[in-house]
Amino acid sequence: MKRIMLKIAYDGTNYCGWQIQPNQTSVEGKLNEVISKLLNEEITVIGASRTDSGVHALGNVAVFDTKTIIPSNKIMYVLNQKLPDDIKIKETHEVDKSFHPRAVKSIKTYEYRILNSKVFLPQERYFSHMVYKRLDIDKMKKAAEYLCGEHDFTSFSSIKTEVKSKVRKIYKIEIDECGPYEMKNDGYESRLIKIRIVGNGFLYNMVRIIVGTLINVGIGSYPPERIVEILAGKNRKLAGSTAPAKGLTLIGIEY
Amino acid sequence: MKRIMLKIAYDGTNYCGWQIQPNQTSVEGKLNEVISKLLNEEITVIGASRTDSGVHALGNVAVFDTKTIIPSNKIMYVLNQKLPDDIKIKETHEVDKSFHPRAVKSIKTYEYRILNSKVFLPQERYFSHMVYKRLDIDKMKKAAEYLCGEHDFTSFSSIKTEVKSKVRKIYKIEIDECGPYEMKNDGYESRLIKIRIVGNGFLYNMVRIIVGTLINVGIGSYPPERIVEILAGKNRKLAGSTAPAKGLTLIGIEY
Repeated sequence: MKRIMLKIAYDGTNYCGWQIQPNQTSVEGKLNEVISKLLNEEITVIGASRTDSGVHALGNVAVFDTKTIIPSNKIMYVLNQKLPDDIKIKETHEVDKSFHPRAVKSIKTYEYRILNSKVFLPQERYFSHMVYKRLDIDKMKKAAEYLCGEHDFTSFSSIKTEVKSKVRKIYKIEIDECGPYEMKNDGYESRLIKIRIVGNGFLYNMVRIIVGTLINVGIGSYPPERIVEILAGKNRKLAGSTAPAKGLTLIGIEY
Repeated sequence: MKRIMLKIAYDGTNYCGWQIQPNQTSVEGKLNEVISKLLNEEITVIGASRTDSGVHALGNVAVFDTKTIIPSNKIMYVLNQKLPDDIKIKETHEVDKSFHPRAVKSIKTYEYRILNSKVFLPQERYFSHMVYKRLDIDKMKKAAEYLCGEHDFTSFSSIKTEVKSKVRKIYKIEIDECGPYEMKNDGYESRLIKIRIVGNGFLYNMVRIIVGTLINVGIGSYPPERIVEILAGKNRKLAGSTAPAKGLTLIGIEY
């Protein structure tokens, strides 16, 4: 018996999320099904991040135990042959039998993509959220600074969050813009804004509520300094709305 | 009666191409259907570029004649309400009644996206072509230099091409690489290579054959200098294969 770690990329559009749900198609369920069939064993993957319905990943992590004699770093090629086009394995390697991807401390990186445009672009429809009003990126960057560091993020988590401590640490928030497909000299004022957030753990809906709040700052609904009050208030109602799932991608997890 | 110019973005995945074909869904046909219904007139669009099946556009151009009283620059918003998610209008404005988008000289820009990776990435599956072998971008850039300028591109056009002169001018070819979603510090060696080609006109399949040939150079099948012979030979068999449609996007057309 050996424990294999998977790094998984997926397009979450057609899944109910990572976690198995009755009568729905989940990433976890699809992996269990395909890996069990291929290795001819009953396989149960343990995921690092239970991404929500519609959220994507470039590097979610999972482990499973197997008796297979296929070399650990080759398992990915075998699996990718049978996995659907919207789930692919980027890496497989053996880890210690005691390694549990949710029990070990980690650093997670998320990216949220905003299409800031007067027109919805077909090419961006699966992986970004469209905002019609022009966003002031400098103000968003200023607001993001107030979020960095260790804080109680109660205001930035779903009221359904069931954890004792809501203290988390955000290492950095980067906000970059580029034209979609780098539309040089196109004259068309659409742009893709990428918000990248790195932290030691995220509460339920935390990234999406942070993004919803940064959008409010970007359109001028309130000043960047309001973040200080929102954090201090420890009340979900003070923050902005939860930005749609489809704009969010779990980029990677470092252990 | 006034003539309206449209700038159109589309995801070509689910279309038989721009041009109307019997029993298939075309971009041209879908535009005629939706615009006719909305304006309550029989509308026939005239397209600038008849993109192939599976090819995408960020800025194809078309014109149509209408009696509508809707202000020209507002027509786009009305149309976008009814167009499917994979076809959207980026701009509408009135042009001279004599303007024909294929009769007037223009400069076209295309972008071809290559996912150079050992693993197929779900996020890139609609808009890029995957190449497994590591590509030598410096060699590809050198080969591209030989293609720039005015040449007879017979070797780089489909044998089905039915035009008298196969002389065209390429103004520039830019080759850039980036990680998908700018995968900083991911350690995963996949990259997206974007080949942008600007020219005064392109023969049938010309961009895709140029890309297929640049890929051959990139994987080391032949040296960059071979381009000179391929051009001089005026024979389609000398060039590389036609790269798949899905990697190609018509970025824009300037008049």
